[in-house]
Amino acid sequence: MNASNSIGIVSAKRAQFDTPLVFRSGAVLPRYELVYETYGKLNAEKSNAILVCHALSGNHHVAGYYADDAENIGWWDNMIGPGKPINTDKFFVIGVNNLGGCHGSTGPSSIDPETSHPYGANFPVITVEDWVESQARLADLLGIRQFAAVIGGSLGGMQALQWSLALPDRVRNVLAIAAAPHLTAQNIAFNDVARSAILNDPNFHGGNFYRHNAVPTHGLRLARMLGHITDLSDDAMADKFGRELRDGQFNYGYEIEFEIESYLRHQGDKFASSFDANTYLLMTKALDYFDPAHDFGGDLNRAFARAKAGFLVISFTTDWRFSPERAREIVRPLLHNRRNVSYAEITSTHGHDSFLMEEPHYFDVVRAYLDNVAEELSS
Amino acid sequence: MNASNSIGIVSAKRAQFDTPLVFRSGAVLPRYELVYETYGKLNAEKSNAILVCHALSGNHHVAGYYADDAENIGWWDNMIGPGKPINTDKFFVIGVNNLGGCHGSTGPSSIDPETSHPYGANFPVITVEDWVESQARLADLLGIRQFAAVIGGSLGGMQALQWSLALPDRVRNVLAIAAAPHLTAQNIAFNDVARSAILNDPNFHGGNFYRHNAVPTHGLRLARMLGHITDLSDDAMADKFGRELRDGQFNYGYEIEFEIESYLRHQGDKFASSFDANTYLLMTKALDYFDPAHDFGGDLNRAFARAKAGFLVISFTTDWRFSPERAREIVRPLLHNRRNVSYAEITSTHGHDSFLMEEPHYFDVVRAYLDNVAEELSS
Repeated sequence: MNASNSIGIVSAKRAQFDTPLVFRSGAVLPRYELVYETYGKLNAEKSNAILVCHALSGNHHVAGYYADDAENIGWWDNMIGPGKPINTDKFFVIGVNNLGGCHGSTGPSSIDPETSHPYGANFPVITVEDWVESQARLADLLGIRQFAAVIGGSLGGMQALQWSLALPDRVRNVLAIAAAPHLTAQNIAFNDVARSAILNDPNFHGGNFYRHNAVPTHGLRLARMLGHITDLSDDAMADKFGRELRDGQFNYGYEIEFEIESYLRHQGDKFASSFDANTYLLMTKALDYFDPAHDFGGDLNRAFARAKAGFLVISFTTDWRFSPERAREIVRPLLHNRRNVSYAEITSTHGHDSFLMEEPHYFDVVRAYLDNVAEELSS
Repeated sequence: MNASNSIGIVSAKRAQFDTPLVFRSGAVLPRYELVYETYGKLNAEKSNAILVCHALSGNHHVAGYYADDAENIGWWDNMIGPGKPINTDKFFVIGVNNLGGCHGSTGPSSIDPETSHPYGANFPVITVEDWVESQARLADLLGIRQFAAVIGGSLGGMQALQWSLALPDRVRNVLAIAAAPHLTAQNIAFNDVARSAILNDPNFHGGNFYRHNAVPTHGLRLARMLGHITDLSDDAMADKFGRELRDGQFNYGYEIEFEIESYLRHQGDKFASSFDANTYLLMTKALDYFDPAHDFGGDLNRAFARAKAGFLVISFTTDWRFSPERAREIVRPLLHNRRNVSYAEITSTHGHDSFLMEEPHYFDVVRAYLDNVAEELSS
């Protein structure tokens, strides 16, 4: 990251919505708040807005840093800023914490005004479709009729795709990075193991751990450890950790021995002390459910017939969670429907995490695509 | 499986060893028992014995069935029997429950005669090297100076390799199937997640759950669910389960929704009710530690210089736990040392589990190799 082209000091904003939101499950949330950040300047035509959707553990703090916490740099700061691929000199960029999140938007840890207690298990199971609807209301509030682009990696990419399907007139371009048109059985299986770890943690209390002053730390930690394995490539792990021993010798016990164990447990502990277990469950369920072809008899060609946007689809060679083959499953129905689609398969060693890394080829592709989008703005 | 060529009714035998076994960790077990089964007939020269080593969840019941439990068929019955690839008309085949196991051999759930309580956490951490030594004592007891072959899949394959390294004069052939010369960081990482699930289960009680009349069911279940994911290929899971819903619809909750969840939880429950948590921990640690190159500065060429046996190494195309590339890591140092080695990469959809499946090409390769071994016996 080059600090010299950081967007600089940013601050979170808050939007209230008092019109009930009906979830795909049928549940109703009478009112909710979304926390968001914006970078750059909305032009007079309000045509240069880009929405950045986050993945499982992300949030609205996408770029820059806080005045009172300069170390807290946005999770995609390498991608977003003046002169960066998502160029804030040209675009008005919005980061939003998803509904159901745990970073300020209404979620399971928020106080339910009906009960004066945290929602906990009462917070509705949410889908990618619900998120897009809640995000569209934020766009309404900001006066944005149509996004220049909606962009996301992983679960964020699924939201970007859903924008093009649910609200085809409200998004001109979709950048779906390290994404897939739906989870495979193996993807769901990993999610189910992670969820089981949380659900069976005695401190979970059926989702109402807040009122017990408890945190299902062990379950959340395990879920995160597993997430790190599926997000990293086998090769990246081998290069970074190999079979290195922390003490240089076998200890014949169950404490940390290999460096990879040290890394996983440290990451797991860090996450478990800062993330909400119910949010984790909701995020994995949203991943499981996303399946645009579901209402079209499994036919992605029909599902994508609604889309009008231009698409940039990007995958990474060592991503085994959402492999290049899965990205091509997005590209094919777009081609079938004669949509304008660019596809780049990036050579990267970082597995699924590659979408967060500054790979020159990857950044160049995003930059080139969005420079074109910016050209169209001024023409 | 063809019932007509089953070895038929078998029964377990028991061997006692009263000479202390010194583990690689330095721990000492003053005495122990091994449970084993034998099939076929040991020839007069005692030269036709084959030892079958088991993997993580296996045991000594490798072929045939019990008189009082005809449904309890050995785990490799498709491979072993009269006229089968491991032909009991020609070979005397031994299956042994590994020391530290939970199917009759001395292990953490056995009563420690010193305390009259189960060993629990006091049972020493065991290595592949320790197993081979304990198995060699069984061979001594049976008067077998040299095995015609030692055979195993996965962790069993590692034991077979270790036989050729530790006791090169006592094994003429090694069949290492779906094996690797050591675990990768990713392999260790998955083991660490599985162990963490068990170690942090409140019913684990530091390994001494027996005296609390408790079973760390949730941890063991989670470990097994994860094991099923890594043992199956992505494609096999997709073919078998895909995104099939158990009730045909989304239920927007945390009960079982997808068929893959139903399968994993069922398998997890079944395993958790029958397997010992401490044995699971020991098995995964033995996997982590195995690394013949460790004492040779990481040089497998030097490590395998001791080996004298002939080798058949087999891998499976969709095995992502111990991929064909890992099997070639075994083949290369054997070639380097001009050992007699055959290698077969079998096309199979079943992932790591392929070694348990009746694939014609796979079975033909094993049969052909062992027919040659049998020829040498009679010549």
